Parts: sequence; C-alpha cells; structure tokens
Amino acid sequence: MSDLIAEESWGLTDGVLISALKEDIGSGDITSSSLIPENHISRAVLIAKSGFVLAGVPFAERVFKLVNGGIQFNALKKEGSRIKAGAVIAKIKGDTKGLLTAERTALNMLQRLSGIATLTDRYVKSVKGHRVKIADTRKTAPGLRFFDKYAVRIGGGSNHRYGLFDGVLIKDNHIAVAGGAGKAVKLARLKAHHLLKIEVEVKNLSEVKEALSAGADVIMLDNMTVREIKKAVDIIRGKKPGLIIEASGNINLDNAGEIAGTGVDLISVGYITHSVRAADISMKFN
Amino acid sequence: MSDLIAEESWGLTDGVLISALKEDIGSGDITSSSLIPENHISRAVLIAKSGFVLAGVPFAERVFKLVNGGIQFNALKKEGSRIKAGAVIAKIKGDTKGLLTAERTALNMLQRLSGIATLTDRYVKSVKGHRVKIADTRKTAPGLRFFDKYAVRIGGGSNHRYGLFDGVLIKDNHIAVAGGAGKAVKLARLKAHHLLKIEVEVKNLSEVKEALSAGADVIMLDNMTVREIKKAVDIIRGKKPGLIIEASGNINLDNAGEIAGTGVDLISVGYITHSVRAADISMKFN
Amino acid sequence: MSDLIAEESWGLTDGVLISALKEDIGSGDITSSSLIPENHISRAVLIAKSGFVLAGVPFAERVFKLVNGGIQFNALKKEGSRIKAGAVIAKIKGDTKGLLTAERTALNMLQRLSGIATLTDRYVKSVKGHRVKIADTRKTAPGLRFFDKYAVRIGGGSNHRYGLFDGVLIKDNHIAVAGGAGKAVKLARLKAHHLLKIEVEVKNLSEVKEALSAGADVIMLDNMTVREIKKAVDIIRGKKPGLIIEASGNINLDNAGEIAGTGVDLISVGYITHSVRAADISMKFN
Amino acid sequence: MSDLIAEESWGLTDGVLISALKEDIGSGDITSSSLIPENHISRAVLIAKSGFVLAGVPFAERVFKLVNGGIQFNALKKEGSRIKAGAVIAKIKGDTKGLLTAERTALNMLQRLSGIATLTDRYVKSVKGHRVKIADTRKTAPGLRFFDKYAVRIGGGSNHRYGLFDGVLIKDNHIAVAGGAGKAVKLARLKAHHLLKIEVEVKNLSEVKEALSAGADVIMLDNMTVREIKKAVDIIRGKKPGLIIEASGNINLDNAGEIAGTGVDLISVGYITHSVRAADISMKFN
Amino acid sequence: MSDLIAEESWGLTDGVLISALKEDIGSGDITSSSLIPENHISRAVLIAKSGFVLAGVPFAERVFKLVNGGIQFNALKKEGSRIKAGAVIAKIKGDTKGLLTAERTALNMLQRLSGIATLTDRYVKSVKGHRVKIADTRKTAPGLRFFDKYAVRIGGGSNHRYGLFDGVLIKDNHIAVAGGAGKAVKLARLKAHHLLKIEVEVKNLSEVKEALSAGADVIMLDNMTVREIKKAVDIIRGKKPGLIIEASGNINLDNAGEIAGTGVDLISVGYITHSVRAADISMKFN
Amino acid sequence: MSDLIAEESWGLTDGVLISALKEDIGSGDITSSSLIPENHISRAVLIAKSGFVLAGVPFAERVFKLVNGGIQFNALKKEGSRIKAGAVIAKIKGDTKGLLTAERTALNMLQRLSGIATLTDRYVKSVKGHRVKIADTRKTAPGLRFFDKYAVRIGGGSNHRYGLFDGVLIKDNHIAVAGGAGKAVKLARLKAHHLLKIEVEVKNLSEVKEALSAGADVIMLDNMTVREIKKAVDIIRGKKPGLIIEASGNINLDNAGEIAGTGVDLISVGYITHSVRAADISMKFN
Repeated sequence: MSDLIAEESWGLTDGVLISALKEDIGSGDITSSSLIPENHISRAVLIAKSGFVLAGVPFAERVFKLVNGGIQFNALKKEGSRIKAGAVIAKIKGDTKGLLTAERTALNMLQRLSGIATLTDRYVKSVKGHRVKIADTRKTAPGLRFFDKYAVRIGGGSNHRYGLFDGVLIKDNHIAVAGGAGKAVKLARLKAHHLLKIEVEVKNLSEVKEALSAGADVIMLDNMTVREIKKAVDIIRGKKPGLIIEASGNINLDNAGEIAGTGVDLISVGYITHSVRAADISMKFN
Repeated sequence: MSDLIAEESWGLTDGVLISALKEDIGSGDITSSSLIPENHISRAVLIAKSGFVLAGVPFAERVFKLVNGGIQFNALKKEGSRIKAGAVIAKIKGDTKGLLTAERTALNMLQRLSGIATLTDRYVKSVKGHRVKIADTRKTAPGLRFFDKYAVRIGGGSNHRYGLFDGVLIKDNHIAVAGGAGKAVKLARLKAHHLLKIEVEVKNLSEVKEALSAGADVIMLDNMTVREIKKAVDIIRGKKPGLIIEASGNINLDNAGEIAGTGVDLISVGYITHSVRAADISMKFN
Repeated sequence: MSDLIAEESWGLTDGVLISALKEDIGSGDITSSSLIPENHISRAVLIAKSGFVLAGVPFAERVFKLVNGGIQFNALKKEGSRIKAGAVIAKIKGDTKGLLTAERTALNMLQRLSGIATLTDRYVKSVKGHRVKIADTRKTAPGLRFFDKYAVRIGGGSNHRYGLFDGVLIKDNHIAVAGGAGKAVKLARLKAHHLLKIEVEVKNLSEVKEALSAGADVIMLDNMTVREIKKAVDIIRGKKPGLIIEASGNINLDNAGEIAGTGVDLISVGYITHSVRAADISMKFN
Repeated sequence: MSDLIAEESWGLTDGVLISALKEDIGSGDITSSSLIPENHISRAVLIAKSGFVLAGVPFAERVFKLVNGGIQFNALKKEGSRIKAGAVIAKIKGDTKGLLTAERTALNMLQRLSGIATLTDRYVKSVKGHRVKIADTRKTAPGLRFFDKYAVRIGGGSNHRYGLFDGVLIKDNHIAVAGGAGKAVKLARLKAHHLLKIEVEVKNLSEVKEALSAGADVIMLDNMTVREIKKAVDIIRGKKPGLIIEASGNINLDNAGEIAGTGVDLISVGYITHSVRAADISMKFN
Repeated sequence: MSDLIAEESWGLTDGVLISALKEDIGSGDITSSSLIPENHISRAVLIAKSGFVLAGVPFAERVFKLVNGGIQFNALKKEGSRIKAGAVIAKIKGDTKGLLTAERTALNMLQRLSGIATLTDRYVKSVKGHRVKIADTRKTAPGLRFFDKYAVRIGGGSNHRYGLFDGVLIKDNHIAVAGGAGKAVKLARLKAHHLLKIEVEVKNLSEVKEALSAGADVIMLDNMTVREIKKAVDIIRGKKPGLIIEASGNINLDNAGEIAGTGVDLISVGYITHSVRAADISMKFN
Repeated sequence: MSDLIAEESWGLTDGVLISALKEDIGSGDITSSSLIPENHISRAVLIAKSGFVLAGVPFAERVFKLVNGGIQFNALKKEGSRIKAGAVIAKIKGDTKGLLTAERTALNMLQRLSGIATLTDRYVKSVKGHRVKIADTRKTAPGLRFFDKYAVRIGGGSNHRYGLFDGVLIKDNHIAVAGGAGKAVKLARLKAHHLLKIEVEVKNLSEVKEALSAGADVIMLDNMTVREIKKAVDIIRGKKPGLIIEASGNINLDNAGEIAGTGVDLISVGYITHSVRAADISMKFN
C-alpha cells in the first residue's frame, strides 16, 4: 500500500490519527497502566461481527504502530474485500498494554471507513449496468475528509473535488452575485487556472439552457425529478454531447438506478459519508 | 454559552474547527475568489429541511467567525430545541465570500451534531418513566470526541468516561492478564488515584459474582439478554444496593425500554455516535 | 483586501509570517529591548529606494500587527501600482520597539513580493498585443508558494496549478511508466476527478501528435524552439482548435514576445519566482 | 554531515522541509497517484544544466527521504564543489511515485541554495587577496534563514548575527530614542549579556567619532563611499586598532574589491540572499 | 520501561522534551559547531555529585537520542534507586557534538525529577508505619505535570488527580456559588460521569459534618491542626467508615508523621513538586 | 509592560501558557462545569501568604485572559516589589467558571517566578557594595527558560547567555577535542559571528594562564576556592585589565559576598533557577 505510505510520510494522515489517539489517551490509559505488567506480550485478532466491505486496515495498522512500534500487524483480508460475519480481518501481536491502548481508536476508524465503503458499494450495485459513476460530496465528518474519500474509492465510488481549492463549482448564490451564469463562467475561466473545468449547478430546465450557453464544462442537475433529469440530459446531449452531466440531491438507493438510466455521467451522494452506519468489528485476545 | 466559550478559548474546539476548515479550503476557495467582488455583503439563513433536535449551533457560528470575524450570526433556536422542517435556525450577515467559504464546514458539523442529539433523544424517550440514564461510549468519530459527547448531552443523554484517562474500566483481557477479577480490582485501587471508581465488565452471572466479590464500584453487564440482566440486577442489588449497574452491547430502540425496566442505572449505546444520520440543514441567501 | 483577510483568518498566511518572525526574533530583540523605553511611540514611513511594481503591502501590515496589535498602518499606494524611487508606500505609527522588531521581516516579504510582481510585469509587457497569458510554475521559494503566486497575480500574470493536488500534468516519466501517452491520459481520466483537465508535456512534434490522439485537454510544449512551437501550434489548431497550448522552458524576456506570436495560449516562466531580484525598500522614522 | 543531522534531529530544518512538501502535495499528487503503479521502482539522477557552486544536497536528500524513507540517495558531489553543466550531482533510486512527488520540492531548495553559494563565491573571489570576510545579512527569504545562511557558509562567506536575538546592532533610530550613541552603548552594555559585543551603525565620519567615544566594540560603516570608508578606517585604526570594522550598503561585485582594499574587516552583502538566481538543476530518470 | 515508551510514542513526553531542546539550541549550538569535528565520537558518564533518589533516566536517555539517534545510552542505575555521591548513573557513547548539545537539557530534567523523587521519599519515610499515602497536588511546574507526577511515583508517593478533568474536587468557592455543600454534591453527581468520586474540601468540623451529610465520597481536611484532624477523622469514621479522608495544607516533614497518626488515608503535599531542590548530577567525558 | 506584550504577540510565552492550561484542563474542568451556572460573575483577589519579591504578574493575568477574555485583572503591586504576607497582589473580576479554571495554572507560574525573584534578590543583597553582577545559568526548568530568566531580571539579577545559540562558552571537553585552549579560541573566533565574545571555563590557575594567552574575551573560574579566585583575578587584571571574569560553581548565600570581594565581574548561580522555593500565594473570592 505504497500510495498510502507516501501520504503518511508527509504527515496528513498521521496528524489525524495522532489527534485521535491523544483525545482517547490524554494523560494515560490508567486501566492498562495499572493492570498490565511491563513487557507482557499478547496475540489478538480483529474479527468481523457483521458483513461489510472492508476499508481502513492500513490506518488501523498505523494506529497500533503509533502507540507501540513493536506491534506486529498481519492483515488477512484486502481492502475492498467483502467480509462475512465471523471472518478474521487481521492478526496482531505485541505489547499487551499497547494493544489495549490502541484498540478503540483503531476500531473507530476501521468501523467508520468500512461503513462508508459498504454503503458506497450498495449504491454502485444499484446502478449496475449503467455507465455512471457514484461520487462523493464534501459532506464528510469534519477533519476526516481524506479518510472518508479514501473509503469511497475502496467501495467502488469516485471522488468529486476534494475541497474548495481543486474544482470550480458555481452555485445559484455565485451566479446571483456575479450577475448571471454567463458572466460567472467567464469570470471563473479568467481567474481559475487553465487545468480546472467549470461546473455549474442548475435547478431547472431554464437554468440548464443558461448554463449551456454560458459555456459550462460540467452541469450539475440539483434536486430534479427523474423526468426533469431525463429532459435535461436530452437537451444537453443535443447541444454538447461531450459535456459532463452530474445528478445530485435526494438520491437514495431506491431511485439511483432510475436516475442512472437517464444517461447522466455522475451521481453524487452525500449520504455515503454524512450518514455512515459503522461496521461491527471487535478485537479479541487469543 | 459561556461554558463553550471557555473551552474554545484554550483551543480544544478551535483546533478541530480550524483543521476542518483547512481541509476544505486548502490553497483557497477558487470559485468564490473568482466570482465574488470584494466587500460584497449578503444575508443568509440556516434552514431545517427535516425535523430534528438541534445541536452544534455555537460551533457553526464559530466556523463562520473563524473565516471572517465580521460575520454576524444570530441564532433563532436554542440548543436542544425540537426543530421542524422549514424552521429558520439562524440568520447570518456578512462578507459574501466568507459565508460561502465557511458554509460547508459549518453545516457538516451542525448536521452531524444534530443527528447525534436527535438519535440520543429517541433513546431517552424510549426509556421514559425509568430512572435510567442513556450514556454514550468511546465509539466516536476520530478527532471529534468532544463534539460528539457534547451533542449527546444536548440530546438528553449522559456522558460515560471521556477517554482512557478519566475512568477505570476493567475488561476480560485485563482480568486475564492480571490473574483474576479480584487481583485486577485490587491493583487498580492501588495505582489509580483515589477519585476514580472502578468498573468491571462482565459477560455472565458467574462473572457478576466474581466482580461483586472483587469489590468493583460499578458493574457493566455486556451483551446479556434482558433476562440475564434482570437476574444480574437482582443478585447485585441483593448484595450491594448502592453499586452502579450499567447495561451495554446490542442495545437498540426496540429493546432499550425493556432493559431499562430491569432496574439498571445506565444504558450505554455506541450507536448514537458511531452510526449517525446527519440532520438535513442548508444555507440560503435572501 | 477582503480576499486576503479571509485567507489569513484560517491561518495559511499567518502561519508563514509567524514562522518568519520567530526565526528573526528568537528569544527576543535584545537591541530594542535594551534601548527603547516602554510605551515609546514613533512614526515611520516605508520608502521606495528604486522603481518597481508594488506587491505584498497587506502582508507587511500584518507582520507589524502580529508583533504589536496597536500599530497603525496606513497604506498610501495600492497593490500593483508602479512605484518610483522616493515614493512613500505607507505611513506607520506605534510602539517604537514593535516597529523595530517587525521591520526586517515585513521588509523581507515586501521586497521579495514586489520583486516578483516587477519581473512578472516585465514579462507581461514583453508579450503585449498577444492574447497570451504569462503564468508561473511551482518553482517557488520553499514555504512561500501562496505569497509568490499572489505576487505573480499582482504583477499581471496568471497562476498555473498551485501544487501537485489541483491539476494533472503528465510528463515523460509518467508516460514511460504508464506505457504510452494514450494509456496515461486514459488512466488519469479514470482516476482524477471530473473537474480536472489533463495536460501532457511534450518535447517534439511526434510527441505532440501522440498527445493529441491520446486525448489531452492541454498540451505543454517544453523547451522547443520558436519554429517548432509554431509548427506544433499549427498541427494542434488544425485538429482541435479549442485545445489549450502552453509553452514552457528557457523562456526569457528576449524571446517571450516571439513565442507569444506563435499563438500559444500560455507561457509559463520559472524565472519570475525562482530568480527574484528584491525591490529596494526601507523603513525610516520621522 | 553530522552537523546537519544534529540540527535536523531536533526539528528546525525538518519543519521547513515538511511545510514545503505540504504546500506542494496538499491533498495528494494526483498525477502520480493516477498513473504510477504501486511498488514501481525507478532510478534517477540530479543533473546540472549550468555551472554553479553546489549547496543543499543534504536537504534535497532529506526531502526525498521524508516522502519515502526507502529511497536511496547517493551524492556524487560534495557541498561547495564547483559543478559544470552536465555533471551528475546525485544518483537516486526508489519508489517511482515517491521520486516524482518529492522532485520539485527537493529541486527548489537545491537550486536556491546553490544560487546563494554561487553568488557568495563570486563576492569572495572579488575580494581575493584581502583579509576581509564577506558576510550575509538578515535579508533572507521569510522562513528560510537557516538554509540561506548555511548556503552562504558553503559559498565561502561568513554569517553575520542570525537574528535579533544573538547580536546587538544599534542603528540611528535606536540612538535617537536612547538619547545619543554614548547612552545607547552604555544601556546595551548594561542590559545585554556579557558575551555579546556591541555594534553601532554610522553614516558619516562625525558619527564614526561618536561611536568610537561611545565605546562600541564594532562599527558598521553604512552606505559610505570608498573614500569615506578609507577615512573612517584610518580614524578608527588610529584610536582603537583592534575594533572590528564592517562595511555595508550598496556593495556590489564591481566595488567590493576596492572596499576590501580600505582595510575593513567585514563586508556584508544583502544581495547574496535577497536577490538569488536559482542554479539550473533537473531530475532525469534513467 | 515499556510504559514510558508507549507514552512517548504518542507524543506527550516527546513534545515537552523537544520544546526544551529547542529553547536551549535555538539556531544552533555555536560553541560545539565551531570546535568539534564531524564524526568525532566520545564516551561520557553521568555522575552523581550528591546523594539522592534517582528519577528521570528514561527521559535523559530520550533527550540524547532526540539530538542524535546514534548515541548509545547505558543506564547503570534503576529508577527509584538510592544513589550515593560519586556513583555512575549511566554510560553514554556517541557523536561528541550531540553529547554536548544535549547535555544541559538532559541534566536539567534528570536533576529536577531526582529532586522530586528524593523529597517525596523523605515524606514517605516520615510516615513510615502508618497506612497513609503521600500524594502530590496540581502545584507542578507549568508544562511539566506528567514528569513531576512521574517522579512522585518513583519516589514512592501516590498521584492525586492529574488535572481538572479526571476528578471532582469541590472547594468553598464552588459550594458558595452552588448554594451549599448538599446541592453541590448533588449537582456534581448528576453531571460528572459515574466513574468519578466526589471530594469535598472542608476547613473545620462544622464543614466536615456538612460534607458528610451532603454525601461526599472523599473529604479533604484543609489546613487543620493535628487535633482538629484527629477529631474530624473520628467523626467521619463514626458515620461512614469507608469514606476516604485526605489531609492537606501546610504539611511538612516535621508534622507529617503526626498527621499520619490521626488515621487519614492520604496526605497531599504541594511542596514535593513546587519547591524542588535539584539533585546534583554532571556529565563527564572519559 | 509593552516588552512583554510584544513577546506574547509572536507566541513564545503564549505557547507555554497554553500548554500549561491544556495539561491542567484536558477535556474540561468537570467540577466547575458541573457546579457553576453560566454567566455567573465573581470577584477575587490574589493574596500573599508569605513575604517575597513579586514576579510573574503579567503572565498570571495572561493565563486568566486566555481562559476567558472578559476577565478583568487589576494588578495592585508592581513586578519586583517586596510583598508582605497578607498583601493583595491583584483584584480580579469575571466569569466564575473561568476564574476557577485558570486559578491553579496562573498561581503555579506566579509562585515559581516570585520564588526565583526572591532568591535572586537574596543573592544580590549578599554581594551589596561590590561591583559584581549576580547572573543565572541554563539550569532552568525544561520549557520555562524565558520565564525563569525573566524572573531573575525582576529579582535584580543579570542574564547569562539564553542558550547554546547566543554565546560561545568553551569548556574542558571542547578544549580537549579541539586540541588546546589556543586552538579552540582561534576556531571559535573563525566560525562564530563577530558580535559574539568568547568565554573559556577554567578549573585552576594554570588553565587561567592558558586561557589568557589563548585570547579569551571572558574567563569563567569554575569551582575554585575564594583564595584561588583571588589569585586568578590578580593574574588576569595584571595582564588584561578589561577582560571579564566570571565565578561559578558551588556558590551559595554564605560565600557569595566573599567571592564578590575578589573583584570578579560576574557570579553565576544555578541555584536561583534549579532549586526554587515557590512563594505562597492564593486566590480568594470576595
């Protein structure tokens, strides 16, 4: 997982993991400090207690190593694999106190990320057979965007822009202040660098036409009905076949397939990161 | 909200909010920088798009102020109040670019915390009429423990220990390594400071008896059936009426009331912080 | 300068300015501490000692305020204005010790940024009459990218991507490892998010053709002669009129105009940030 | 290079290098992440594309290692050696993605520091045959003082004080506020610790005499003509032969030799750090 | 010392040690940098110059390793052992410059902590034969609480609560604002989590009775005479035999034994951390 | 206290105070949070419970303000004034919870610094009538050097160098490695910047002579008897009347006066910072 290691080496992910450890450990793990003898070694396993798509193992491993560099962590399952209840995800061996001190922080991350991957996977399956991507949004837990977006990829989804800095997305408020969609796209084209495409969010068909004539590279159809989306796609494909079309807003597992059928390129879903159901995983000594 | 202000002033919450802003803003909000003129002022509202128990307004306000100290934020609803769809939560006025740059980070926090408060509130209601507290666990989003536990209180729940440092909770692994429940409690009593009670987690009635004779101050009944819990409560109340009894593990909205009926003092629920469903809130300019 | 203030408020620029102050002040400004009485107030001016394009005044002001919040700073010249030797750039008043302690750090930033704006301005003038943008590169002073790129904008230049995270730029090494330009563009299109265009760097006309058929959105002509650039532009415009063309590598004030004449859209110049000649500015008490 | 390693180990230089990496990498190197397979290994060289005095190799190496600890870096040239165009400075081998991610940050530092060493070297040569030292000033790039001053030493120059904290340098503003040069020197002697010499900056011969009778340990002749400097040296040597004399202000490669001929001990030059011309170095895969 | 290593690995102690090194080393150890050749290796010993109880060796070792990871540190004496003047505490070998640079910071910590352990040990001895614990307070050096409390344990003392966050201690001001001891205890019981005992500080016998009826778990007798303490103990033991009694305030080596004789459970002494006499230790090359 | 404010504004002292607050407050002041109503205001005083020389009031004030910016702090006594038991040092008014949360951290700093100032003052008095300065050493509490040295100045003492970076002090180990005192001084003169004097530590009269002929600017007589010191002073004054002489090592209140009588310029005392006896100060509500 060299990708990840490179990220860690310059501190983005380590920073978050260390903060998470600090908030849990504070001035010390008093239970383990009181009860566990020095240099006591244990073996443990991470076990699935329900079925899910696995994500976050490298971060769980890193948490254990941050607490005690001597802990050995042997992952038995790959990121993205489908896990059944009862499966052993990883075998761990090392300083008993270190294992107990790291346990909750490692599991909290692993359970959240597996929850995200699992839900993403369900959305991806719901649009199977269509040429559409399921994408995330910026509706991630504060401070955890890198991790949440990583889990979306593991679950088979695509990432939308990471933040406000790596993509131009013009919404109604921007258009109102800029004085029209045309002016807004022109201004963005002038000021944003040349490697960024310009996306415009629209709410109805008349705005679709405005965005088209304004020269948007990408159009986001926000909160439209399936019928409206279908019409919007027809209009856009008629004028600019290569333009990217994104659907967003109130998309759930029930309607995602139908929306995918309209021919949009991208369906973005806030739900997969803002309303996560944690996977059930625990650490057992053996 | 002076409590909160005091916390913020020494940096715990500000640190998290600033990290969240940084991950979203990175090298700059290019859309707003490109389109919004300098010194442009807007008015906006935060609107509920579904019903929920409100939590996190002071943090949302703080996010806006961190981005631009001149933004005025006028909360119309109190923390903990029941919000209906369509209600205006706050009126905001200030630098347009600042409002747009802060929007997502403020909402992400507000939606998560209101989601936690709402779910906690449902658990609290489900045990109405019983003298039991609904408590949280350490199963919070990494880095967000302070916020998650704050939202639990707002939702009417109680906090369990904050982390590994402010409470002794002896689990089976500790007992195994220490050489028995009795030895474990004795060691903890010796090494932990005198203001900390000692809680022992048990899995069945025979462990309940061990914990009792070991001298635990608090006993946690983990993953027991309602019947087992009832028996355990009877045994404990018979021997040490004042001892605190906590039920934990696989407790949901369906069985919480029944468990409360067993007479336990505390029901702790991981679900209210690890499987949050975000409240639906948006910012609208007007 | 609300743009800037918003940036500062979430800490990116303040972090750098504080580091710069700390490296200069260390354990204290011993000369001023020894000689300047408490509560002594002075007036001073920032004076140009040579001609240049002004950039960085808001940062100079911020440095003074970081050292002593009571210092008043009154800018007499606007960012981007052409300054003549002898002109007063700003009037400052406040705690004498604060002024002396902040002086060098404020001037170091102001002199560097004005140097960048001045050189950028010369490049912009050298391509006057052409529809080409002068752009910067990532060849900035380590730690100062935000500031260096800001000064390029003030000098009339355009920014290229900020870093490795907000633009895809495929170079020969990437192509070699990916197994050809076509494969590389396809992979990038698959993995990078949909708001990012894909630029391919080419060294000769045969690579230009490869990049074209690979489907690049932007082509960078690297280190080519003016004649080659002209030919490349003709080939590209013939096939894909709307594709963005960038010229880069060994471009100087002597050949920039001629290159601009080839019809490229963008000329990127490392020189304007990696080989800065500081503007001459000093602080005088009065 | 144990000196350097010791510095790094307590974080001063690593802090700057990590900040520089973070501003370039941000949320991730999307091009390399998209195109380079995991565990792909490459060999590369750092090649000089012009002639210069080499400085900064240990920092370039450190940048690669910070991104990926497994990268092997083999320096072929020593710090301070004269490099010809085409020379191979170092051979590098390791994770391809890591090499590409670190490349620009490593080169930015190496090119700047070699630029400083090269210019310093030219100044040192221009005063050859004289017993004078070429010294730097505090006119360094904000945040890079340690590195800039290191490069000056490598180029054969001497360091002046590092910052405001490790040397007393009394300027006209200090003297005016303190009420005369004599009072200023007396105050500084009283308050600064006993291991610090006291330098006074003077603008003309009458101030030279004042500084002499005030008891300065070092006199800086600021912005004087060669003739004035000569006279000042004669006056000072006549009264206090051992006093250290520094010339500063508007000293360039044309007049440095002549000024050295006046017998001053030290010539300080802002130009060598504030107006650096980057050395031309690139990384090539092979 | 795996306990300690675990702590260090998540940064609490390293953060303080690095800050201490930075304040001493600043921009560099100029004496050693000037005089010590690169790669020069020395052997040294840490020698006691007076008698004391040893504490802090792992931290001293860590300081040397932070400065230069290659330094070998061989502790000859165990934490908590009684050291005689002249004894060799540790043998060290490594980079000469690193040894000299780290020396003072390592010794400052070792001398302070040994001073604390030594004084704690004297208090512990002064109450020998009694079933009482000597405890510390929060009167530690700002920033050094973890270290100071560690040294107390090494000296045979017990830790009181670590800070404001892991123990409830109600003082007169709290009681006055809350409206009486009874109300205060009830409120604390309601709001603090269920694993925290509640201690009430009292100044006289009437307050002792109030605290008893208020339901305190622990009573602190503050600044009482030995006679009053004796009476208070009798009253409390009469009513609630198991309640923990702490004596505090103006306790010194002369009266500690007598106070212990009253039957209190805990004697807390600010003196052992706020008025430390450093042990005399030096580093000698050999 | 503009000196101090300037320091604070760039974060050196604030950094330490915030760390100290964080170690005490951690996840929150549970006692005050539970018992004190919101917006409750109290008045309090800081009262001396013993006699001492006051130091650290601005830092105590800053601690209160960091916790709650609305707290008013009115100092009634000046830094350096002699305080009698019972005297009111400051009146404070503000948020009750804030006052209680800040109390211990503010007092810990104030008590330590006043302890240092008081002991320094006793040493200064013990050498009254002599032209000698009492100076501190680097034997300060880890992390608190700025504060400890500040308190020494308030107590009438002088500061020695701040750290390893702002003064050259050559000890026996340096001399041994460098190959003699003469070589060592020459090397230091070459490599350290020209504003630093060079001090050599000597242990006996033969070393005094070596240091003299080596050209030291300052000689430190380490651990010599009063008789030896007297002889050394005579030798040095005979050869180089202006050379600064420092006595150090095992100097206490009993022998300081006698040593001062030998005519040394400086007596440095580790005791005043490494073996502090805290002044007795408390906060009372009224």
